[in-house]
Amino acid sequence: MKTGILNSNYQLLAESYLFSQIAEKVSRFQTAHSQTRIIRLGIGDVTRPIVPTVIDAMHRAVDEMASSETFRGYGPEQGYLFLREAIAQGEYAPRGVELSPDEIFVSDGSKCDVANFQELFSDRVRIAIPDPVYPVYLDSNVMAGRAGALQSDGHYDNIVYLSANAENDFQLDPPHCPVALIYLCSPNNPTGTVLSRETLTRFVRYAQENGAIILFDAAYANYIQDDALVHTIYEIEGAKECAVEFRSFSKSAGFTGVRCAFTVVPRQMEMLRKMWLRRQTTKFNGVNYIVQRGAAAVYSPEGAAETREVIASYMRNAALIRESLQACGATVYGGKDAPYIWWKLPRETDSFQFFDTLLENCAVVGTPGGGFGPQGKHYFRLTAFGDPARTKLAMERIAAQKKILF
Amino acid sequence: MKTGILNSNYQLLAESYLFSQIAEKVSRFQTAHSQTRIIRLGIGDVTRPIVPTVIDAMHRAVDEMASSETFRGYGPEQGYLFLREAIAQGEYAPRGVELSPDEIFVSDGSKCDVANFQELFSDRVRIAIPDPVYPVYLDSNVMAGRAGALQSDGHYDNIVYLSANAENDFQLDPPHCPVALIYLCSPNNPTGTVLSRETLTRFVRYAQENGAIILFDAAYANYIQDDALVHTIYEIEGAKECAVEFRSFSKSAGFTGVRCAFTVVPRQMEMLRKMWLRRQTTKFNGVNYIVQRGAAAVYSPEGAAETREVIASYMRNAALIRESLQACGATVYGGKDAPYIWWKLPRETDSFQFFDTLLENCAVVGTPGGGFGPQGKHYFRLTAFGDPARTKLAMERIAAQKKILF
Repeated sequence: MKTGILNSNYQLLAESYLFSQIAEKVSRFQTAHSQTRIIRLGIGDVTRPIVPTVIDAMHRAVDEMASSETFRGYGPEQGYLFLREAIAQGEYAPRGVELSPDEIFVSDGSKCDVANFQELFSDRVRIAIPDPVYPVYLDSNVMAGRAGALQSDGHYDNIVYLSANAENDFQLDPPHCPVALIYLCSPNNPTGTVLSRETLTRFVRYAQENGAIILFDAAYANYIQDDALVHTIYEIEGAKECAVEFRSFSKSAGFTGVRCAFTVVPRQMEMLRKMWLRRQTTKFNGVNYIVQRGAAAVYSPEGAAETREVIASYMRNAALIRESLQACGATVYGGKDAPYIWWKLPRETDSFQFFDTLLENCAVVGTPGGGFGPQGKHYFRLTAFGDPARTKLAMERIAAQKKILF
Repeated sequence: MKTGILNSNYQLLAESYLFSQIAEKVSRFQTAHSQTRIIRLGIGDVTRPIVPTVIDAMHRAVDEMASSETFRGYGPEQGYLFLREAIAQGEYAPRGVELSPDEIFVSDGSKCDVANFQELFSDRVRIAIPDPVYPVYLDSNVMAGRAGALQSDGHYDNIVYLSANAENDFQLDPPHCPVALIYLCSPNNPTGTVLSRETLTRFVRYAQENGAIILFDAAYANYIQDDALVHTIYEIEGAKECAVEFRSFSKSAGFTGVRCAFTVVPRQMEMLRKMWLRRQTTKFNGVNYIVQRGAAAVYSPEGAAETREVIASYMRNAALIRESLQACGATVYGGKDAPYIWWKLPRETDSFQFFDTLLENCAVVGTPGGGFGPQGKHYFRLTAFGDPARTKLAMERIAAQKKILF
């Protein structure tokens, strides 16, 4: 093979994917300390089982696949109508947002959708990305050649970064220059903070004035506890003309290992909607039928109640983490309307160094804030997805090392 | 939104995706003739249910998801080791090909993999594509900007087409100029013909001499009845240095609605293997755990025996279609080592016109050969995936219209 035929943009990627790297470090620590039971509050993966109503729906769907009369082969690439209707009714109608099933595209994961959506745009457009944020927005654009060169401060030349930190209360400012695409994530991964109605309105106005598109990742929307906060960007007037929304069952229904998500492209952006439809019909073949039946069951009265209780249990973990760290004197953000706690490290400690300190002294795994962007370098992310008893134990281990960690 | 920010390559796409178009035509016909029962031998979708051993494995996996102790969240993006090992042992070892699990990447479908793999290459490379062939290779490259302008003969400027037709017995010639990427499909969709060991050896030599990569789609490998034919390109000496292979459970185990496939990138192309790993870890989140357990069960002795019987039943359909058409005087190809029959239409009939004729006179749906490339314009594809009784009925309807159709 001649290496010149390869996509050279891959060489611009900063380093190996954050979570893979962490997995390796943890694995090495576990090998060296085989007696120690590590508590993982790092990767944002759920731990509670799928709720009974969804399990029942999946068993029934498996049985359907076992008989000629009910077997399902290829489904619609966009997802079965029963699921798209359930999503419109279950997620959007209660927030006063009317969507038709044609505007909803079911997929096997928000990671795929947010990574693939940039394909619909010219490779010369300028994009804005929050700092810190879920790394996939940036990495997928680096691979596509939109990022330019990596600078020594961790920023890429051609990316417009939108800083979010304690100083601006995590309320980003719209770009000060014209960009074509803006990624937003609210509730934010990793900071656990939520963009206010006012902030979102400013972004929608910016998009309208600049002919830009907002790619709004709301994978954690169902964790918002405060009903007055914006749950979907379509609650903002004018958003249907300029915003695409990504949602997922991963965190709302424990589907990280089941794989189901959806993307909304409103009819008000018909050219974009048709392009995404064409992209998905050409490069994707729909989601497993069993999974779609399971996802639809999330919106049944029983499924919804069971799912709410799972989320409530994670949010009790979040409160415990928040309060435990605060009791030790830490400054923390998030954890009220999101399953992430964003710990501001004392004395500007480097987050990667802190990862090692926490692992070695407490056998607790978190995620270095620096992995989400330069603005995260003095922060540390803990997740509320653990088992309650073990989350409590982690907080006890951390409190016991108060002198080192705070 | 400013339309200038969009990926303008989408405008170069010839027309709406072949199978979506056909679905619309059939739907209109059904509405107009509500009493007629259409027989679908068009889209390559299976109809027989998932075999019992796989169903059992999926039920057990659903139950695992219902309990904290056995619940699985995010799995490895590359697929669980148990499945990759089963694939290496079940698909490759019997053909004398040794693969390590690290060389196998599990995904939710070959359509995704063959459509996404081109991302690893420069957008300036020249590619070669068989004509006719599964449209995804071409369309995904048009979207990526590698195809150039569409000409009046149905060809794109920058694509090197490799003609396959009755005249060369469907044995393609390697390109006569340097290209970086070559798509091959064997058994071929749509022609149902298999590339000979000699032809594949010539392509591997070409790739070695030109530093090119072969993207080998073998989604129908398990339909090959003649044991002497090449089942995997790695049976050809030197192929591990230049060929990526795409395989699927869709047709081998009836997984079109279940979604599981895999791609092989050998260690001999370590840079490419690492790039694909990076691509998948960044833009994909692994396949449903339940599905992976189901796929692994295909390789159990019981699962393998049940699956073989399903394939045998489809191949009986293939023989029936072949022989029925031949008895009417038709010239047909394929159908011996693949579930597709490639019908050479009489008097150079246009394949799209023939689609309408067949639908209107027999209420039988096939696929116009022209949808797979200009070389297919006087051919027509029928699939062996139908119910046996209905396939027989379709052949009777066709025989009854002998005067019109032959």
